[in-house]
Amino acid sequence: MNPIISTYDLLQLASGDNLSLQVYKFIGQQPGKKVYIQSNLHGAEIVGNAVIQELMRFFSSLNSSEIQGEIWLVPVCNPLGTNQRNHIFSTGRFNSYDGKNWNRIFWDYAKYCTDLTEFAKSQIDNEPEIIKENYRAKIQRAWSEELTKLQQPKSGTVSKQYRAKLQSLCLDADYVIDIHSSSNQAIDFLFCFATREATAQYFLLEYGIFMTEYDGHAFDEAFLRPWLALERELKKLGKNVIFDVESWTLELGSGMTMNPNSVKKGIAGIKNYLSYKKVLTNSILLDDKPIKLVSRDTVKSYYAPRGGMIQNRLSLKTLVRKGDLLYQLLSFNKQQKLPEVIDIKAETDGLVFDISANESVNQGEYVLDILAV
Amino acid sequence: MNPIISTYDLLQLASGDNLSLQVYKFIGQQPGKKVYIQSNLHGAEIVGNAVIQELMRFFSSLNSSEIQGEIWLVPVCNPLGTNQRNHIFSTGRFNSYDGKNWNRIFWDYAKYCTDLTEFAKSQIDNEPEIIKENYRAKIQRAWSEELTKLQQPKSGTVSKQYRAKLQSLCLDADYVIDIHSSSNQAIDFLFCFATREATAQYFLLEYGIFMTEYDGHAFDEAFLRPWLALERELKKLGKNVIFDVESWTLELGSGMTMNPNSVKKGIAGIKNYLSYKKVLTNSILLDDKPIKLVSRDTVKSYYAPRGGMIQNRLSLKTLVRKGDLLYQLLSFNKQQKLPEVIDIKAETDGLVFDISANESVNQGEYVLDILAV
Amino acid sequence: MNPIISTYDLLQLASGDNLSLQVYKFIGQQPGKKVYIQSNLHGAEIVGNAVIQELMRFFSSLNSSEIQGEIWLVPVCNPLGTNQRNHIFSTGRFNSYDGKNWNRIFWDYAKYCTDLTEFAKSQIDNEPEIIKENYRAKIQRAWSEELTKLQQPKSGTVSKQYRAKLQSLCLDADYVIDIHSSSNQAIDFLFCFATREATAQYFLLEYGIFMTEYDGHAFDEAFLRPWLALERELKKLGKNVIFDVESWTLELGSGMTMNPNSVKKGIAGIKNYLSYKKVLTNSILLDDKPIKLVSRDTVKSYYAPRGGMIQNRLSLKTLVRKGDLLYQLLSFNKQQKLPEVIDIKAETDGLVFDISANESVNQGEYVLDILAV
Amino acid sequence: MNPIISTYDLLQLASGDNLSLQVYKFIGQQPGKKVYIQSNLHGAEIVGNAVIQELMRFFSSLNSSEIQGEIWLVPVCNPLGTNQRNHIFSTGRFNSYDGKNWNRIFWDYAKYCTDLTEFAKSQIDNEPEIIKENYRAKIQRAWSEELTKLQQPKSGTVSKQYRAKLQSLCLDADYVIDIHSSSNQAIDFLFCFATREATAQYFLLEYGIFMTEYDGHAFDEAFLRPWLALERELKKLGKNVIFDVESWTLELGSGMTMNPNSVKKGIAGIKNYLSYKKVLTNSILLDDKPIKLVSRDTVKSYYAPRGGMIQNRLSLKTLVRKGDLLYQLLSFNKQQKLPEVIDIKAETDGLVFDISANESVNQGEYVLDILAV
Repeated sequence: MNPIISTYDLLQLASGDNLSLQVYKFIGQQPGKKVYIQSNLHGAEIVGNAVIQELMRFFSSLNSSEIQGEIWLVPVCNPLGTNQRNHIFSTGRFNSYDGKNWNRIFWDYAKYCTDLTEFAKSQIDNEPEIIKENYRAKIQRAWSEELTKLQQPKSGTVSKQYRAKLQSLCLDADYVIDIHSSSNQAIDFLFCFATREATAQYFLLEYGIFMTEYDGHAFDEAFLRPWLALERELKKLGKNVIFDVESWTLELGSGMTMNPNSVKKGIAGIKNYLSYKKVLTNSILLDDKPIKLVSRDTVKSYYAPRGGMIQNRLSLKTLVRKGDLLYQLLSFNKQQKLPEVIDIKAETDGLVFDISANESVNQGEYVLDILAV
Repeated sequence: MNPIISTYDLLQLASGDNLSLQVYKFIGQQPGKKVYIQSNLHGAEIVGNAVIQELMRFFSSLNSSEIQGEIWLVPVCNPLGTNQRNHIFSTGRFNSYDGKNWNRIFWDYAKYCTDLTEFAKSQIDNEPEIIKENYRAKIQRAWSEELTKLQQPKSGTVSKQYRAKLQSLCLDADYVIDIHSSSNQAIDFLFCFATREATAQYFLLEYGIFMTEYDGHAFDEAFLRPWLALERELKKLGKNVIFDVESWTLELGSGMTMNPNSVKKGIAGIKNYLSYKKVLTNSILLDDKPIKLVSRDTVKSYYAPRGGMIQNRLSLKTLVRKGDLLYQLLSFNKQQKLPEVIDIKAETDGLVFDISANESVNQGEYVLDILAV
Repeated sequence: MNPIISTYDLLQLASGDNLSLQVYKFIGQQPGKKVYIQSNLHGAEIVGNAVIQELMRFFSSLNSSEIQGEIWLVPVCNPLGTNQRNHIFSTGRFNSYDGKNWNRIFWDYAKYCTDLTEFAKSQIDNEPEIIKENYRAKIQRAWSEELTKLQQPKSGTVSKQYRAKLQSLCLDADYVIDIHSSSNQAIDFLFCFATREATAQYFLLEYGIFMTEYDGHAFDEAFLRPWLALERELKKLGKNVIFDVESWTLELGSGMTMNPNSVKKGIAGIKNYLSYKKVLTNSILLDDKPIKLVSRDTVKSYYAPRGGMIQNRLSLKTLVRKGDLLYQLLSFNKQQKLPEVIDIKAETDGLVFDISANESVNQGEYVLDILAV
Repeated sequence: MNPIISTYDLLQLASGDNLSLQVYKFIGQQPGKKVYIQSNLHGAEIVGNAVIQELMRFFSSLNSSEIQGEIWLVPVCNPLGTNQRNHIFSTGRFNSYDGKNWNRIFWDYAKYCTDLTEFAKSQIDNEPEIIKENYRAKIQRAWSEELTKLQQPKSGTVSKQYRAKLQSLCLDADYVIDIHSSSNQAIDFLFCFATREATAQYFLLEYGIFMTEYDGHAFDEAFLRPWLALERELKKLGKNVIFDVESWTLELGSGMTMNPNSVKKGIAGIKNYLSYKKVLTNSILLDDKPIKLVSRDTVKSYYAPRGGMIQNRLSLKTLVRKGDLLYQLLSFNKQQKLPEVIDIKAETDGLVFDISANESVNQGEYVLDILAV
């Protein structure tokens, strides 16, 4: 089957050129869930583009009866971030214009909905599917108002105008998958929200970081938080519902690269997850694999206590025990002294799961992350 | 009188060079309040350096009986921000390493204090001066713990290591003045906190923006919020106290420049304020001037609805009425059409008080601010 | 008359979005010279966009009999430069990817033509118009080879691919006008080549800088040098010819702004020049104004001898005498000393014609230019 | 033996902080040659800092009779370049202020010496050692004049002020070694000048790139070209002399990293070279190894013919034959088409010796280098 390919104006540049989003939509014969998958939200995190390209090949090889519902694919979903350069490097995580992290700008209805309790009460006798439909309509109305504001003379910031286009594509999705990687160098893992742990294993990754809800306006969170909020309200009213709405961030390896192994894992995981969800009706994969889920709070980040050069750092995936040597800082000075080599030891047990791409550090710059597995 | 000049190590760079803070301390003969004044926290906002230089000349011309208490001056208080360049431009507002706004990183004890109610109760029978002393000691203990954390192997981010040095200089101050300007181009005004409006007029500026408390980790706020929180707790217990602790941000003109008029206003305002506060015991200025205080919520920011070039924009200080033409956007295209000239009109009445330094805008970039005076 | 509007693919970005050039062509009823005018080659130098917009309005108001030959207008001729941002600033003069000055990358046939002497000899008996035609064809053949190279697997750098598109638009022009401004802040003037001084005055500007030939791959130079080289060869053979081929760079004021006065001067000058050249057949302007042409060698640039803040700098257009105070450097230190105020005096007489936009300088950064008028 | 450690003021920053150079000098008991070794001239090329640190340990373990002459070591020789950041990345090769490549700014006496022929004639009857001494004195006089110019009010650019300090350390050296790496990812090799090939092998590296003289103001070249020029003049006069003055650039692996293998190779090569030169009098290494020297002209650089993502690129050290697949470009579009995968094939035989760190490319950005081995 061939995808329907749609192009959407995104932003007009000072030069009069336009940036666009292009969406590849695989529409199954039978109606069903809407899956939304995007990549490259952070400019340096390109790995998902290869994953999406391979998924596109795979879905194209299917016939339309093998997909139930629809799958939307949005590679290179942030052209401003992807194309910007400082020297040979992509700018990575933030908008070079205003310093904003591209993944902390999204519209989270949970923050704007002031009548959630009333709404929950009004739905108490409805079936979950009906509640879902009604809530989605409610979200869409609020979103329309948000979009209308941008039509006023004041218009809105780059962030607001950008998210207006991007979130319009996915607010009505059932499953959202946002493919990232480290800006630095990292293992493959996923981020998972509380109450959605059960399906995490279908992505076939070894590790996952478990998010207690946070308040960061991240893409995955902005999509899911309104549903989590509603579930909580309903629960207060004695109605336990978990809507079949999920949001995942896959972290596949390192920045500025598309590591073939990470790409392969991403593809296998997504295909397996979609099979489990019966969006892919005919897939043979269907596997699960125990995933080690660890709470975000257990991540310990190490920053350079002095300026210098990092040497003898433990490599990714090393298991460390408290007190182990993590890395050395070769620290120069301008006080007529010999350079120092400073040993930095682990404060806790864990796994080296992310390391800085740059081994040169000013004091306070990032060195590595330990996950308490 | 001569200042005591102290230099403090700030951060060590990758090259082994050190950045430092240098503080000029004018210690009066009689003990009294501690005034803390800094400039250039944002890299492009240099105007306060000239203000501090002139204040230093002025204080040096006094004899020590003319100052009651002490005045600490910290020009170029953010070397990382001040020295960084992209082409000929200072980087302005954010750390080029992590995108963080240099003025949204500060330690705000109000967020860490978990036993404020108990503390307030324990102080209910004390005189305000005693409460102040006790609370200050309590803040300092928490701060010491914060500093200790940075000594662990994990150390801390650039932001945390930077603020550790900067806030150590001022946590025990009575009056804090942080001199900024627009990164763009703006009028002279100040930011003022609720319950401290009464003395705003002594800065002799025409306009002030009135902050309801916000949650931004700004320098002025991080200093004052713990005191506001304690005042609220005491009030709940029936004790109305306003501590003589104040925090001001002066905004003097435009970025990358030290406009002589803005410098003059800054100096006059600070001298007058210190006279009013009796830190300067012999000053002849002592004037007040009605200041127009406007709530922050009334600031309306305009962003480019399209990419293009700004032309015919109203100049700073123009009073506009709803519907007035604010600016035009000369918008080019790549669709075989003539360029368009788009009129942007005011949504509300107000004063043009800040305009973008750059008249070239990608869609969503900042154009101007209107203050509802 | 309406222009023919043509859009040309320029470069494809990593995201798959394209940048384009759009050319507005006013084709007169009668054949004649080709005029090529572009703006915004350096990202921060936007003023020419307004000039071209006004010229477009003016040419549109003419009927086609009022133009002899054709006029091509290319505003925002460097989208990569125009759209890139570092904080709120345009990146100014260089490609943020490779540091190359956008106006030092152009293809200059004079460097590739190895048989110029033979060619000159072969043309010795021809009329200038025939020589011109033959030489142009020769240039075009070499250019075609250059373009072919880019089709090979190795392809070419951003600079080469960019100039391939831009210079293809103008290699066959007769008069080339490239509208710049200072990246900093400057007066209005033009750059003029030796042997083309006579017509400089028709641009109605007060000052011009006279270029001895240089070797900088600038746009104006890359266009004209092949013709200057041929003229020299012919002269050696006893044939004095000055082809009616000219190349101008207008410098209209300051960066990141479109100063209305500079815009006006640009428009008036270009209209007058085109009238003088009889491209505009019916124009009433036709004026000349003595222009002060000064050799480029007489420009004296001042750089900061120390780090600090610039204050009391003379303003643009000030005439100075050797020994006059040009500016002061307010220089802080971290050695327990008071700040210093350093006086910088003029080494020579002249006119302050360009000053840095940034009054904060690291040691060695640019402060101002003096022109020996 | 312990080094003498000297610190030299380099540049003062806008904040008043100073950057410095620190030199570690190992002075042997017996006089002899002066060796000058520096690292990290380009901000991202940090590997030489580890090499110098290890050399320092090794020299410290010697006693002063084991060194003949003196060895100066200058790690982190460019603090401005080393400390600057854009996001987590070092800025790499150019000054973020003016776009200048840090290794194209040096003072090359060959360009300023106008009386070289006369000087050569005057020395024709002298012994090489005397000529060397006289020429060095002549260079130093010209350099003193250059330094004097910077004391004038105009002062000089960042580049000029920087090189004033750096080149003052090495103009009187006999052997200069500048340790670089790729800004991207590369094999280990060296750059070697014509007439100095014979000793290249003592660095024990597999590959070398042979420089015909170029005109690039690079550090190695600026040091050696005056000597090459003099040798040529003397040769014209019938006197064949090769002065024992040499200049090397070692390229040790990849940017932002200090690869342990590259470090090891650098150390072994330098120790062996210094043993061969009898600066290390007691060393046991003394080996030679055939080095493959290839002319710089044979380097073929590949640039992206379109925007997109690089995949399936051959890895470093792969030997390719003309027509082999070098890499694929996964190229997205915004024209409702499927992404394309474009095959790029080798134009010539050779070795993949440098590849871009970033697999995301705008059209025209660098992909890889092939060396015709």
